[in-house]
Parts: sequence; structure tokens; C-alpha cells
Amino acid sequence: MEAVKVGLVGMGTVGGGTVTVLRRNAEEIRRRAGRPIEIAVAAVRDPARPRSCDTSGIRLTTDPLAVAADPEVQVVVELMGGTGLAREVVERAVEAGKHVVTANKALIATCGNELFAQAQERGVMIAFEAAVGGGIPIIKAVREGLAANRIQWLAGIINGTANYILTEMRDKGRAFDEVLAEAQRLGYAEADPTFDVEGIDAAHKLTILAAIAFGIPLRFEQVYVEGISALTPEDVAYAGELGYRIKHLGIAKRIDGGVELRVHPTLIPERRLIANVDGVMNAVLVWGDAVGPTLYYGAGAGAEPTASAVVADLVEVVRAMTADPENRVPHLAFQPDALEDLPILPMDQVETAYYLRLQARDRPGVLAEVAGILARQGISIEAVIQKEPPPGSQQVSVILLTHRVQERRMREAIRQMEALEDVTAPVVRLRVESLGGR
Amino acid sequence: MEAVKVGLVGMGTVGGGTVTVLRRNAEEIRRRAGRPIEIAVAAVRDPARPRSCDTSGIRLTTDPLAVAADPEVQVVVELMGGTGLAREVVERAVEAGKHVVTANKALIATCGNELFAQAQERGVMIAFEAAVGGGIPIIKAVREGLAANRIQWLAGIINGTANYILTEMRDKGRAFDEVLAEAQRLGYAEADPTFDVEGIDAAHKLTILAAIAFGIPLRFEQVYVEGISALTPEDVAYAGELGYRIKHLGIAKRIDGGVELRVHPTLIPERRLIANVDGVMNAVLVWGDAVGPTLYYGAGAGAEPTASAVVADLVEVVRAMTADPENRVPHLAFQPDALEDLPILPMDQVETAYYLRLQARDRPGVLAEVAGILARQGISIEAVIQKEPPPGSQQVSVILLTHRVQERRMREAIRQMEALEDVTAPVVRLRVESLGGR
Repeated sequence: MEAVKVGLVGMGTVGGGTVTVLRRNAEEIRRRAGRPIEIAVAAVRDPARPRSCDTSGIRLTTDPLAVAADPEVQVVVELMGGTGLAREVVERAVEAGKHVVTANKALIATCGNELFAQAQERGVMIAFEAAVGGGIPIIKAVREGLAANRIQWLAGIINGTANYILTEMRDKGRAFDEVLAEAQRLGYAEADPTFDVEGIDAAHKLTILAAIAFGIPLRFEQVYVEGISALTPEDVAYAGELGYRIKHLGIAKRIDGGVELRVHPTLIPERRLIANVDGVMNAVLVWGDAVGPTLYYGAGAGAEPTASAVVADLVEVVRAMTADPENRVPHLAFQPDALEDLPILPMDQVETAYYLRLQARDRPGVLAEVAGILARQGISIEAVIQKEPPPGSQQVSVILLTHRVQERRMREAIRQMEALEDVTAPVVRLRVESLGGR
Repeated sequence: MEAVKVGLVGMGTVGGGTVTVLRRNAEEIRRRAGRPIEIAVAAVRDPARPRSCDTSGIRLTTDPLAVAADPEVQVVVELMGGTGLAREVVERAVEAGKHVVTANKALIATCGNELFAQAQERGVMIAFEAAVGGGIPIIKAVREGLAANRIQWLAGIINGTANYILTEMRDKGRAFDEVLAEAQRLGYAEADPTFDVEGIDAAHKLTILAAIAFGIPLRFEQVYVEGISALTPEDVAYAGELGYRIKHLGIAKRIDGGVELRVHPTLIPERRLIANVDGVMNAVLVWGDAVGPTLYYGAGAGAEPTASAVVADLVEVVRAMTADPENRVPHLAFQPDALEDLPILPMDQVETAYYLRLQARDRPGVLAEVAGILARQGISIEAVIQKEPPPGSQQVSVILLTHRVQERRMREAIRQMEALEDVTAPVVRLRVESLGGR
């Protein structure tokens, strides 16, 4: 099928990420969307500037409004930010009957009511998953996934900069100003950090979440906002002594006859999952009357996480552009003729780390024998605990953590261990996963 | 707009929950879907049996196949379970050109390839959000929300019974058999717990998640499965000493030239968010190449959480039934003419608990004065810490946690505290939210 032609406005961090993700995962995306998605033209500030992404095949222009008017462009992706020219770009695109995808929370929170009315009239979509929670599909979850619920409240860590600062203040007992300066050096905070640390960015996002949760218009100007710049390390520490963590939360709550909308530093019991969301990560806790509590967690900013949401919106728009059943979401996510029957690995070939527990007679040399068996199978040991025998028993327990190894080798090592005279019971073998990386 | 007529097959726990949620939230659901959704007919085993839900206006029959054939029915909701008669019901409904919504993981995991091909041919949808993770919109998140990503791996706690048992074993040091017996008494485990504790239910769900994550056919028969019945409290404790939690995970991982699919007890570093998902709750961690790690958490079973997913699917099917722009997902989740301009509560009227820190001269009676001010404003104290002055200083810090009270009253109390002669600095005031209930 013919490619859908996209016009990109803004090629900064998120714009560059979007180009990169669309290229790298072109095949996966085509398999899901049913047709290719291509960037035909992009508006940039300086076409001569070197870029982090591959711009080959993309016409560059310096005029954002020209992209909105370009007859080749079927969907406009607005990633320039702000509420001035960006608003004009979106209005022109909608006026021209083009769908729009945007990551612009300020624009949606402050001008969304008018923009959506215009889009409704023109029969086009304005998609804004990337405006809240970066790559977390939180708009989709609340808007569609929880459609059965009367949503009671939601509370979110929706600004990564503020969460990074709070995490550092707690972990290292450091002062706000000091951590902010470091965050600026590391690129986690803007030169002018006001939007992030004073809660304005979070208020934009909360405005959007509240609207889709409760079915109310966007009311940014009515959000109560308190930032984190006045927090001291002492309060962070005392909160800890009391069993709490301080998080900068956006809270929207349904109450009798109205709604609460507020952004402020908040103590949360430390045992709550959301209290343990640290660093630049975001999370939103949503309470629906049928589903109870649900939580959505992921990277709230950054080039590729945000691009993940932008491109998901593009896939959705592409599906909506043709209305026949072929363009519904495929049952198994990928188009039926695009499924790939990949082989499933036999367990023998799977690689994990292991926890082993051996029961053995309390004699010298057992541990050496066990270590020798592991070494001969190429298995390295990460940790050992030896438990002394309980009174009256001659049996010790040896607990081992190993590094990663193929299951096949571990099976052989266990077979040999169980054949040792001093090993008196079957070896307990559990797998260990760090779940920390790709 | 005219109501969409649904035929329900099975009115057990989830069926009853679906009837209840559709009735209670009829208005919210209509505001989102654009038209009402009504259950016209339901197949039950015994029409005379008393029910937990209100069945008024619903024709009852004992013949599931009659529901699939009923000319009034536009969508069939299959909640009877199993892969025998349930399969026939779904096939007949699809054959008759009706959309299907199901919570049946065994059916989708073992017969999905054939059922989806048939549905594709007939141009209807089979929706199955409720088949994995109960009310967590995990199918939607992976299938649509992460559509931009090449998904690397996912790992899920996808069986609440097994997770409840593991949590109890850890928290109370109890043995598997003992906890299982209790779970059966509490209704968290079936009389025959094999499917849950031996990992078959989790393998069904993993099969589905892997298919939509990687774009592979459903391959249930190739999942490696190990249950939790052999786990001992010692191993749970030793894992803890080493800094790990044991969770029963379903893991799907993309590797060179293939895919790993496995369900087994797994040690996870205790600092990971998913290691802290306890009791009957479910969570799925998904790693996409663009978005990085994302996590989805919520109730994995139960009448209303599962109904939440069933009804979300119904809303989606209703939207797909007419293809004009009016039936797209509304920008703000609710139809534009169904937005409600609820008042936003002024902060003065918002009720939260509070953390206060006072700096005061180290003289007797300060705490009594402060407590008196709070009492006169009707504010009760939950905890107090008094920090002795550091050497050379005459200043103590008093930290207070209060119960919930209106912000207005707290402002007045703080005004009075700051007017005390012995209070030497502005009072630090932070809000406390337990985030634990509705």
C-alpha cells in the first residue's frame, strides 16, 4: 500500500527522535499500521545545522506554515512547542483537512478546547499522546482502556526533572539549588527551569489528564500550583523518618459537585508503588470505580520515549484515514499477513542467572567440589552463603548466586552436584532475572 | 442514538460484574461511546438461581448458542470459559457477522489463530482485553500504545493467585501448602488450583502477550512452564537475604533468530518496581527499543476489574461498528456534546492531611500551645517528632503529621502558630496523601 506522507514541524530532540524511530522501525511499524509512514517534508530553524538523525529523502524548509499547507502532506506532526506559531500551524493544518499529531502540552492545555472544536468540525483528529508522560501510553489507557469506569481520582509524577531533583535530595541529602545546578549540567533541566520546578509543566499535563478522566473541558487556569523550590533536605529526611517519601504530584480528584486540580509536593507512604518511582521516570496512578487502582510507569521525556508516543499516534491516524475493516487494530497487533512465525527457543538454550541451594554433610571440601563443578561448566559465582547446621544436625545449607549461563550447562552442573556423596538432597534451582536492561 | 444490543454468554463472577458496571456507569459509558450499550439477552446455567446483579430487562436463556444466533444481538460477550462450547459460541457469532468480546485466555491462547482468521474473513472483531491482566489495559498498551517500538522483552506477574501465595510465604514465612489452603478458603484460589499454581493460566496469558508484542502466531504449546508448588519458605527467605524477591513471572524475550517463552519462579532484585507488586495484584513490564521500560499495574482478576476490560472492549466495538468520524475516540475521551463543565474546587476547600515543621525556642509549653491551636481548628495530630537543639543552638524542630482537614483551617492554624512568640521561622507545610483508597 502507498506510504502516508507526513509533514514534520520542528526537528529538535523529539523531532530528531521521531525521524530516527520511524526509520529504524519502519518494518515493524508497517507490519502494524498496514502501510508505510514517511516524512516528506520538515520545517527546521536552520537547514544547514548538523542533525542527530538521518534526514535523507526529507525536504527541509524553514517555514512551518508551508508544511501545514503542503499538498503532499496528509498528517502534520507539530513538535516545535510553544503556543504562538505552533497554534497557527495546527489551526492551518486542521483548516486544510489534515490530521495533526502533537507533543505540545502547553498548546493542548491552554488552547485545546478551541482546537478540538475546530478539528471536530473539519472531521480530522488531533492526537496528543506524547503530551503527557512521554512514552507511557497514559492518554490511551485513561481514554480508552478505562472507558468502563467512573474515574474517582488520579495522581501522577508527571515531570521528570522535578522527580530527579527530589530523588537526589533524598538519596544524597543534598539541597535543592545544588541538585538543580547539577541537573542543568546533565541536561535533565532547562537553563530556565521554572516550568519544571514550579509545576507549570505538570499543571499542563494534569489539565489534560483531568479532562479525559472526568469528561470536563480543559481548565488550565484553574489548577492550583505549588513548586518544589522551597523544599529543604531536612523535610525530605523527616518525611523519611515518618515512613513517607516526598513526590511532586499532580492530583485530580472527583468530589461532590466538582473536581480538585492541584500540583504540589506531597508526602506518600513509602510502601506505595508510586512512592518508589525515582529519577527522571514518570508514573500515573488512576483509580476507577470498577477497576480499582491501576498504575502506568515509564520514561516521561527524552527523544525516543517521546517519539514512541508520537509514532503510536501516527499509526492510529493512519488507521483512521481509511475506515474499512482492514484498518482496524489487528487482532494480534500486526497485520495478519505480516505475522512472522519465529522459532521459540528450547529451554535448554535459554540463558539466565541462577540461585542454587544445596543441602550437604558438614565436611570440609564440599564447597570446593561444588565450585569446581561450576567452574568446569564455565559458570561463575556471584555470591555464596553457607548456613551453619542447626543444633543436632550434620547438614549445612549452601546458597549460591551465579552469573548468566545456558540452562543446558546448569542442568549438567546440577547433575554432577547431586552425584556428590556429601550432597544429601536434590539441589534447589531457581532462575534470576535482573529486569534492568534490554 | 439507538442502543447497541449485547448478548451475554455466562453470568458468573465476571458476567455479573459486567452487568453491574454497564448499569451503574451507563451514563459515563454513553458519554464516551456516543450511544448506549444494553444487554438484551443472557445465557445462564440456571435462570432460577439468585444473582448478585440486577437482571431486569434481560431475557434469560439456557442456550449459549441461541445467543450467538439471536437476530437482535449485535455483539456477543463470551464469559463462560473453557475451550469447548465457548469456542462454538464464538465461531457461530463470528459466522453470523457479530463482533465478539471475550475474557477467555485459554480459548484465545489455544484457538486464537483459527478464530482470528475466521473473524478477519467475516470482517468482525474479536476483542480480548480482559483475557490478560484483568482490568489493566495491557493488550491495548502493547498493541497500540507501543506500536512504534521493536519490543525486546516483557515480564509479567500475570496470575494473582500465585502472587498472593508468594507474598504470604514471604511476609509470614509460611509454607506453600498452608497458604494455598488459606487462599482457597478466602476464595483467591480455585478448588482445583492447578491452572494457577502450576503456571498454565500464566502460560495462556504469556502466549497472548508474546504474540502481540513480537508479531508471532499464538504458540501456547511451546511455552516452558514451571509452577510454584515446590517453593519452600527457606528459599524465599534466603532470596531475601541476598536482596531478591521471588515472583512467578511469565517472560517473553526476543533473541537472535527466535523468541523465549517461559513461566517460572524468578528472583528479581528487590529494588525493582515489579518486585514490589504484592498480593493478588498483577503487573507487566514491557521493554521497547524506543520507549525503554514501561510498567502496567492493577487488579488481575475479580468481577469488576475484569468487567472494566470487557466493557472497554464493548465501547471499542461500538465505535468500530460505524465508521464515520463521529465514532472515532473523542479527543477528550467523552463525546464533545457530553462534556460537563464541573466546578474546580478552590484550594481553600480541599481536604488533605498535613506535615508541619516548626522551628521554635527550646522552652517548655511550645508544643502545648501548638497542639491547642490545632485542636481549636478541629485538626487532630497523628504523629509528633521533637528534634533536640543541635549543640550551641536554642532552637528545636517540631515535626507534626495531622489527620485530614480543609486547607482553610490549616491556613488559619499556621497563621496563629506563626504569631506565637516562641515560633521563630515560617512554618513548613506539606500535604500528605495516602493514595490508598477511593
